[in-house]
Amino acid sequence: VTSARPERLAGPSREVPAALLDALRAACTTHVDDALLDAHSRDWWPLALAWAHRGMTARRPAAVAEPASTEEVRAVARLCHAHRVPLTVAGGRSGVLGAAIPARGGVVLSTRALRGVVGVDAESGLVEVLAGTMGPELEDAVAPHGLVVGHHPQSFSLSTVGGWIGARGAGQYSTRVGTIAALVAGLEVVLADGTLLRLGPEPASAAGPDLASLFVGAEGTLGIVTRAWLRARPLPAARAGAAWRLPSLAAGIGAMRAALRAGATPAVLRLYDERETRRAHGGDGTWCALLVHDEAAPELVDATLAVVARCARAEGAESADPRLVDAWFAHRDDVSGLHALTARGWVIDTLEVAAPWARLAAVADGVRTAIAAVPGARSATVHVSHSYVDGACAYFTFVGDPGDGDRGHGDPGIGDLGALEALHGAMWEAGQGAALRAGATLSHHHGIGLHRARWAPEALGASLGTLAAIKRTLDPHGILNPGKWIPGDDA
Amino acid sequence: VTSARPERLAGPSREVPAALLDALRAACTTHVDDALLDAHSRDWWPLALAWAHRGMTARRPAAVAEPASTEEVRAVARLCHAHRVPLTVAGGRSGVLGAAIPARGGVVLSTRALRGVVGVDAESGLVEVLAGTMGPELEDAVAPHGLVVGHHPQSFSLSTVGGWIGARGAGQYSTRVGTIAALVAGLEVVLADGTLLRLGPEPASAAGPDLASLFVGAEGTLGIVTRAWLRARPLPAARAGAAWRLPSLAAGIGAMRAALRAGATPAVLRLYDERETRRAHGGDGTWCALLVHDEAAPELVDATLAVVARCARAEGAESADPRLVDAWFAHRDDVSGLHALTARGWVIDTLEVAAPWARLAAVADGVRTAIAAVPGARSATVHVSHSYVDGACAYFTFVGDPGDGDRGHGDPGIGDLGALEALHGAMWEAGQGAALRAGATLSHHHGIGLHRARWAPEALGASLGTLAAIKRTLDPHGILNPGKWIPGDDA
Repeated sequence: VTSARPERLAGPSREVPAALLDALRAACTTHVDDALLDAHSRDWWPLALAWAHRGMTARRPAAVAEPASTEEVRAVARLCHAHRVPLTVAGGRSGVLGAAIPARGGVVLSTRALRGVVGVDAESGLVEVLAGTMGPELEDAVAPHGLVVGHHPQSFSLSTVGGWIGARGAGQYSTRVGTIAALVAGLEVVLADGTLLRLGPEPASAAGPDLASLFVGAEGTLGIVTRAWLRARPLPAARAGAAWRLPSLAAGIGAMRAALRAGATPAVLRLYDERETRRAHGGDGTWCALLVHDEAAPELVDATLAVVARCARAEGAESADPRLVDAWFAHRDDVSGLHALTARGWVIDTLEVAAPWARLAAVADGVRTAIAAVPGARSATVHVSHSYVDGACAYFTFVGDPGDGDRGHGDPGIGDLGALEALHGAMWEAGQGAALRAGATLSHHHGIGLHRARWAPEALGASLGTLAAIKRTLDPHGILNPGKWIPGDDA
Repeated sequence: VTSARPERLAGPSREVPAALLDALRAACTTHVDDALLDAHSRDWWPLALAWAHRGMTARRPAAVAEPASTEEVRAVARLCHAHRVPLTVAGGRSGVLGAAIPARGGVVLSTRALRGVVGVDAESGLVEVLAGTMGPELEDAVAPHGLVVGHHPQSFSLSTVGGWIGARGAGQYSTRVGTIAALVAGLEVVLADGTLLRLGPEPASAAGPDLASLFVGAEGTLGIVTRAWLRARPLPAARAGAAWRLPSLAAGIGAMRAALRAGATPAVLRLYDERETRRAHGGDGTWCALLVHDEAAPELVDATLAVVARCARAEGAESADPRLVDAWFAHRDDVSGLHALTARGWVIDTLEVAAPWARLAAVADGVRTAIAAVPGARSATVHVSHSYVDGACAYFTFVGDPGDGDRGHGDPGIGDLGALEALHGAMWEAGQGAALRAGATLSHHHGIGLHRARWAPEALGASLGTLAAIKRTLDPHGILNPGKWIPGDDA
């Protein structure tokens, strides 16, 4: 076991004093076995996966604390705060940008023992759930009440409620139910010094700002989310879908835009470029598939599909085989293709951003063109999903063959890893740079983590300094998930 | 001119040095004439109105600065920061809880010169607007682009974009378009020391937490909102409405709940108790009016009204005269009845809270009962509006006759003012206390201001301390709107 590329994890791993380990063991279940420390050294960041394939870890923590209650979380936080030792919270570790990796070593707080739905208000549709609860466990617990939360990221079966909140993620039904930010009615948060905050739950409020928003998307840097109250809906009375064949990506974006701006909010509305349509949706490279699916009261589902049909036809769409929607449902969480390419030593990764409707086509074109121009690139494709009244998410998938390029290898002792890292870095540099220049956000739902820290100053501007100041206030010793994108957070 | 009841404005008025006044005059238009200082000593807080009727002001600022650009706002902030002089931002001063009153004197920053729509992205529906722009000016500027923002509080023609944001308000169409928090795609904010933040605009993001949320609802205590990007929709292709006669308030709440939980989001959905229905909606005291109105694509409007009809009938509703909806539109912003009672020396005020569906009927009953039990109370009624998937707003109107009660008068020099204040305070104490005990929020859309500061610790708990710490970070000299609900904010 060796630690990985220093340029990604610049900065030291902090020492963990024996006295702290003893105190953690007294406070809650605490693991120090190698297999568990290795597992908590990585998430689904493709670089971490590439390293793992070669027997390397990113950075191991000294211990994994596994508190089983909010009080135990408070005790762990107070101890790390007192010892000034990094404390990185981890849930399912399914993030793809390294957010769960303990960049400065120290202690990982695993939420795996904070599991379960502890209360359901079926009349209001409020679900009180612990942060380490995984997707299937959540939905299985609320279904007997006739409810569904409906947050379904691709990582649904691997990820936790706390991870969804920390990443400010969006699920596949977000166009109807909203991103996780809209699903959170309340939070319980433990601050670095053990202070306990209860924020909500409330359907709406004007009693000061929405402080819960500060912890949604903070990736464990500002506090530890221990519990959430999520909004759940009745199990839908009706479901229906349709597929459309659009003459171009721009026409498809026009159809989506028109439908959203008319007030339609179909649970699923996904547009694939010609190449993704050929790869997975029965296309021949000349048209783009638009899939729509909705779940709600029957009147609303019918009306929503009617609006989408009208808007699609106005852009020259023709009806496509509705079984394309079923096929998408059958394969939507399948990432085996990704793993196959990773195992071959290729670069495969995704990059998702949001942009206003007026900029979306330019973002889609600019990013694909920029990535494809990188020597070694094999493909750069896009689909559009997660729509809003003012814009949508453009989700890029790119593949590269490090053997194609004309660049030197790194340390010969690690084989082709240097070339893979260089190509991965160059494709990201091209793609994320083009996205920002075209007016897109840094991220739509994957977050920042380790990998995107390099663009945070450009994307966030002066607000990053304000966030750093707030971080110093809430976490004066800089113990919570340090060494990533908040400047000076590991003082 | 005399200053008002000390118990409401405990704490000194800060001195404003002549050097600061001179510097403000050099930085931007600055007023010191009595009429303008008087006007900026009050908003629509009923106590401030009662005082004004008697020739009293709440607390006058020493100057009213009227910056005409973001750079001028920064200059004013830097000056007040350097001199450690309170700076209270004011827009239309139509708030009803005293938020715009300069509780510690100092300088008022009027946004009236920061006016106008400065950019429209009609394709995305993004409107760039300055903070001092009033409702009609905003909508008049976007209508030629085929757009409508649709934020319509009762104060629409008196209030500003910055005020809507500062108060975290909700307009009459919020069930379809969302509260102001959902309409804000981005903000420009000036911090106490003049730091300029640009947050967004973006349709969605996972690049760290949504820092803009921190300034929505902060009532000018954390920063000065100078500009916003608001989401606008196409002018609706269809509009329709209906009225229903419900056998009870509980049945009406059941119908609203079922419709929202089925996925319907009618722009307007309002339920009046028996007494409000008799007063304004053609009732005889035995039934409750439920008004529904929607604006969107025709398919969606039809489906939405169909869902509401189905849910209403399931609760025993009968169809009522649809002209009730037209009558509501004709009178919705009319507050002349309120002014008539105020002029007679009566107490008239409103209290709005949010609660989950499961608690809404108990909140409605508990608050009305508690207020009605106060000696001198003449009426306490409720309507339910601004619905969400998990709950709704209960909006109470209460009237009292200070001559009815059995309490001593205050200072004989001000006539019946002591009795009026005492009755007003007792009705609030009863109503807000009952609301909190029944599980409602402190506020739904009016905010906290001066009047509700007394309940902030109970309603917000430990999070109030966290907010105070963030306040000290962003505004270390405590100059922004001090002396209200953030503890220790005027250090």
